[in-house]
Formats: sequence, structure tokens, C-alpha cells
Amino acid sequence: MSDLLETVRGLAKKTDSKIVLVVLDGVGGLPLEPGGETELATARTPNLDALAQTSQLGELELVGAGITPGSGPGHLSLFGYDPLRYVVGRGALSAVGIGVKLAAGDVAVRGNFATLDPQRLVVDRRAGRPSDEKNAEIVARLRAAIPDIEGTPVEIYTESEHRFVVVFRAAGGAPLGAALSDVDPQVTGVVPMTATAQDPASEKTAALVNAFVGRAEEALRGEEQVNGVLFRGYSDVPHFPSFDEAYGLRAACIASYPMYKGLASLVGMDVLTVEGHEDALEGKVAALEANWEKYDFFYFHVKKTDSTGEDGDFAAKVKKIELFDALLPQLLALKPEVLAIAGDHSTPSKLASHSWHPVPVLIHSAYGRKDAAARYTEEEAGRGSLGLRRGTDLMPLLMAHALKLNKYGA
Amino acid sequence: MSDLLETVRGLAKKTDSKIVLVVLDGVGGLPLEPGGETELATARTPNLDALAQTSQLGELELVGAGITPGSGPGHLSLFGYDPLRYVVGRGALSAVGIGVKLAAGDVAVRGNFATLDPQRLVVDRRAGRPSDEKNAEIVARLRAAIPDIEGTPVEIYTESEHRFVVVFRAAGGAPLGAALSDVDPQVTGVVPMTATAQDPASEKTAALVNAFVGRAEEALRGEEQVNGVLFRGYSDVPHFPSFDEAYGLRAACIASYPMYKGLASLVGMDVLTVEGHEDALEGKVAALEANWEKYDFFYFHVKKTDSTGEDGDFAAKVKKIELFDALLPQLLALKPEVLAIAGDHSTPSKLASHSWHPVPVLIHSAYGRKDAAARYTEEEAGRGSLGLRRGTDLMPLLMAHALKLNKYGA
Repeated sequence: MSDLLETVRGLAKKTDSKIVLVVLDGVGGLPLEPGGETELATARTPNLDALAQTSQLGELELVGAGITPGSGPGHLSLFGYDPLRYVVGRGALSAVGIGVKLAAGDVAVRGNFATLDPQRLVVDRRAGRPSDEKNAEIVARLRAAIPDIEGTPVEIYTESEHRFVVVFRAAGGAPLGAALSDVDPQVTGVVPMTATAQDPASEKTAALVNAFVGRAEEALRGEEQVNGVLFRGYSDVPHFPSFDEAYGLRAACIASYPMYKGLASLVGMDVLTVEGHEDALEGKVAALEANWEKYDFFYFHVKKTDSTGEDGDFAAKVKKIELFDALLPQLLALKPEVLAIAGDHSTPSKLASHSWHPVPVLIHSAYGRKDAAARYTEEEAGRGSLGLRRGTDLMPLLMAHALKLNKYGA
Repeated sequence: MSDLLETVRGLAKKTDSKIVLVVLDGVGGLPLEPGGETELATARTPNLDALAQTSQLGELELVGAGITPGSGPGHLSLFGYDPLRYVVGRGALSAVGIGVKLAAGDVAVRGNFATLDPQRLVVDRRAGRPSDEKNAEIVARLRAAIPDIEGTPVEIYTESEHRFVVVFRAAGGAPLGAALSDVDPQVTGVVPMTATAQDPASEKTAALVNAFVGRAEEALRGEEQVNGVLFRGYSDVPHFPSFDEAYGLRAACIASYPMYKGLASLVGMDVLTVEGHEDALEGKVAALEANWEKYDFFYFHVKKTDSTGEDGDFAAKVKKIELFDALLPQLLALKPEVLAIAGDHSTPSKLASHSWHPVPVLIHSAYGRKDAAARYTEEEAGRGSLGLRRGTDLMPLLMAHALKLNKYGA
């Protein structure tokens, strides 16, 4: 199927109907032994079962056959943006992953702290892998030393260990280009390289990067291990038509973890405040209820179905699925015109990692046909009337079920 | 799936086998209440049921997930032309909709009759919505007054009320461009705008349009209400490889309504004469029988399955399906090598409009595999061996089942 986003964009209309998209992160699974049951099939899910019996089910392949999606591409696909076309660069993904909002024209850069000897030769490209606390302390010093470079605002963020992120803000000036060479020489025993622009739009960025390197080394003089910076991976902000532009939707994100909030803000969703720790499911429901009248679309993220799969803990993943099931009636009580449940990828406990397997998807609305799928499980979803589809088909289907799309052609 | 048309075109071969494609317009439906039966499932269709049991079934999405097709895109998809690529503009569609044949280089324009005051200011953009009879009377006067403009043939047609269509014929001269600005100012109290060309190929068209406006006002002088013309929506003729070019098929259209005859002629089908009123099913069968030896491909259109759905009349739609069922043995008696039944979109009575839901498709030939689908219904088709596909997959499948496609590659 081709990229429908532009077509949908031309057909979208505003109505009062509301769409809730629940993303059970990594929900797809595998049986531990061939012929066995997956986590979803093992879980006791009376509420999901009842919902499935009056819904349309199917399966989604988020990126393509055999491709294991990262969280970024998996979510982009669910949001209707073909992840093979809308690529978020590593710098931008690092920034987004720690919850930094990027604007058009900004450039985000991945940095490593390094150890330099007195001749500036690189001794350790990871500065002895400092602790996150040490990283944060160094970042604080750099923030004080480099609030801007000749008027261009500079933001510096801890990622983890030796990793940090720098954002150069265009701040209303000309957009900054991201086509420039690395500072990281990738080997030790040489001096850091000088960044050079690969197109005219990136000349200013190269000057900013080189100035940053010099000022950082000055600020860190006296540090034994963490006394240099290396850059690799620059990205400008991918141009996404926002949810408002693409779908005419006032969209809100209900998530707890920075990565998901960052992805949602990239596509123009408002990120709602969620009270509570970690997955904070009750806080998420409260945020949904409190903001119900303000938005047409809610992205509701559940994280622990993925974390437990990543831990290889089958029983724990089953429990997290049951926890969501217990909460489902509160979502249904709001009576959204369309309620969808999907995953951004599979995370089978058996693999203890993301996987390429399709994820089950469920669409509940007043405009469904009879459907043979009786539960929200991989096996039953395979019998569903939605069939096996690309993840990017989901948003057009949700828009259609919410009666928010005009007819195509006369 | 990508566009297979070019590939099929390179593989098509002529044989004596015959293909009949029955389009039950808008045949896909919905249950009135969740969990209930659709119109197709409710209908008593012994002949369709028997056919389904020896056929391949599946479901077609004509444009894409969630997209509700107009009749134009729905049919183009069934005919193998990707409706996202082969776009028929509004002017051309209006012309086609009233049965006007367009040739390459022609431009079709949508017009409104308007009321102008003595200073040429637009008083009413719809000329008080004249009757169709008044429209036809005005069109007759314009035809007499403007048979051509400086050698370019001009054709004028009634659409309905204040709407008419003008076709400027290239008639062997340079193709006329369709990139020009509107004459319709979209507001009252101002004079009609002068059309200006937006590319060199459209300069002559702009001159023709402006000359038409002047001559029409002259011809209508003295009329109180219908004394001006406004233009909006120009289209040249989309380039379609014809059925002969694409498939090597001598194709015939058996339809009663202008829109469908127009679409068929756009793709190079011969439009057969059908005796009778409205859907004229018996007349259509007679046309099929009378022309059986002359063609390899028959497009057989049934309209009332859509009209009753548009009326929101579930019981009437069921009846129209049963009416077709009763006629099916006459089609089978001709022993076409391939008989296919599909819809150009769904028109559920529940929605009283076209919808995005896939349509069931059936292919009957000597080369089918065993198939679990026991009836031609949405639910059974979902179990069929053809799966859920893009509408553009249908023609390659019909060509294959008719043994009219060579092998691809060695």
C-alpha cells in the first residue's frame, strides 16, 4: 500500500467525534515453546475479550516484513507517517529520547565526552565511561560556560555515561543545516577533527560546532578524564506535517517516559501532565478524564508491557497486560467514538528484545462488520476482518471510523 | 502493492477467452446493529451461493485503507488504474458524468449560470437556480451562438439547474492546457474575473474562456436571471493507456447511467446500447448476449445496489441484490472463461453513503483453488483465498485466470 498521508490530509474534516489510540508498548509476543501460548493469550483479560467480540481485529506490520521496529519508527507508523520515508536522525532521536522539543531550523548533535592528553590527542573516546552523575555535573559546567555562541542559543543535555546532546537553536534566524563532518576521529592518538560544512546552509553550524569544542575544552581544563568533547551524528528536524495539518486533529499525548513524549511532540501533539511514578496508569486515566473535552485524539501509552518483555519475564508481561485489562472499563466509560488498541512493535519475552512479528490491532466503533476474532491475541487477530496491514493504514482507518474523512473523488 | 499496470501491459496476450466483470455498485454493506448481518448476508441468493462455492473470494480496498471512494476512483481501481495516480479532474468528471467523450488535448470546464446587473456585477452566482428545462433552453441558445471560437470547436452541455459543462476541442490542433485561473469570483457584488493562463500551454485556453464569457453574455442579453456565465474547474484529459493498450482487450461497457458509460469510454471501452429504463437489467443481459462474439471483456454495471444504499433503505438494497441473483444464470449460460463480481465501493444502508469498507470480490474460472468462502458476503469473503487486496490487483488476476498473461522473466 502506498503512502496515504497526503491523500488523507486532503480529505480530513473536523467533527466532534473522539479517537483514543492505546499503544501497549511491545505487546506482541511469542510462545516460550512452539505450539504454546503467547503472553497475550495467557493473560486473563475479561474486559479486552468482551471488547474484542464487538470490534474489528487485525494485525499490523509497522515497518515492513521481517523488520524489527525501534520505538521511533514503530510509533511513527502508528501515527501514519511511513517510517521508511520520515526518518528521524540520530541527533534528533537522542534529543527527543530525553524529552527535548525541537523546532524547525534547529540542529541536534550527539556528543561523547572524551579524555585528551596535553597535546589534545584523544586518549579515550568515552572519557572512561563516567557515571551519569558525573555527566550531569560536567553538563552543568558547560551550560554555565556556553549559554550561547555569538547569539545562537545553545542547550546541553545529559544522555547517559559519556553521552550528551547539544541543541543549537535557530531561534527565528536562518535554519541551521546538518550536513557537516564529524569531530570524532573514531580512533585514539589523534586530535579531534574540525567539522567542515558539506553545504552552504551548514557553514554556520560547522562554525558553532568548532567554537563549542574549543570553549568546552577551556571550561573543562583541569579535569583529568572528562576534558574533551567529540561530535558525531547531526540532525535537523524532519519535516512532519503535524497531526493538526495532516488530520485536522487536536491531539494529546498521555505518556510517562521522555522518548514517547518527545515523539508525540514531534508530530505536534500536546503532551499532558501525568501524575505518578513510572507507568502511572491511574495518573494517565486521570489525565485522559481531565482533558476529555479539550481534544479530538488521545495517544495513550502503556510502557510496562515492553519493559517486562525486554527483561525476558513472561509472567511479568502477562501481569502487565492484565493490569491494563483491569483499567479498560475506565477508558470505555468515556465513550470514545473510536477506541483502538495496538502495539508499536512486538517484544516477546522469549527474545527479550523487540521483534519483527506483527502486532495485533483492535478498532472499536459503531461502523464495524462482524468479525471472527474473539480475543485481543495474536492468533485471534489473525482471523480478524482488518487483515494483515502496514502500520500506516491505522490512522486512515481510525479517521474513517470516526467519520472524519470526506469521499475521495466524485 | 505497487502499480502492476505497466508490468501487465508488457505481458498481455490475445486469446479467445472471455472475461465478464460484474460491478454491483456500492454492494458492500454494514449490519444495522453491531453483530448483525449485512445486506448481502441477509439477501436470499441461491445462485450466487452456488457460484461462490466453486469460486475464489476475497476483499478489495479500492483506493486505500480508510478511504471512501467516489464512483470514479472506485471504477478506475477495478479497471486496474491506481486512482491515486490516475486522477480525473472535476471538469472532466462532469463531462464524463453526462456521457461526453473526451479526447487527448481537449479541455472540459465546469460552468455556472449567473445573474449579472447592468454594470456586470454578479448578483447571484447561481442565477436563481433555474430549472433543468430552463438550463437546456439557455444551452440551446448558447450552442447556436457559439458553435466555435476562431476555429476551435466548442460544445456546451446541460448538467443540472445552474450547472453546465463546456468542452473546448483540440480537434487535431495543439493540446489545450488546463492551468488557468477561475472566472467565478466566488462572491457577489464584483464583476466576473478574467481567466489568466498559468502556463504557456494554457494561454489559448484562457483566450477561449474569456471569449466565451463575452459571447455568452451577448447571446443572453435581455434575460433577467440567466444572463452571465462563471467558470471554475478546468481539466484536460488524463492520459490513460486504454484497455486495448494495457490489456490487449476488446472491451465493452454495458451500463445505463451516463457516469459509468463516460468512465468506460475514458479507458477506451465501446459503450453498448442498452434497451430499457433505469437499471434495465434484462436489457443489459440482452446487450451482453447480442455482442458476445465481438468482445473479449465485458464490464456489466448494476446501479440499484448503490442507489438503495444511498437511500438508507436496507430492505430495498437486499431486494436489488436478490434481483441480480435471479439474473445470474443467464450470465453463466454464456460460459465466460472468467466471471468476476465486485463492487466499486461499499454503500451501507446504515450510513446512507459510500464508505471505506472493503468490498467482497468473487472470481470464477477453471483455475481456482479450494476456498473456504461459501457465500458472496463480506464475512465469507474475509475467509476467501484471495485475501484482502488493493482494487488494482483485480485486473491482473482476471487476465491471469483467462490465461491472457505471459510469464514474467525467464
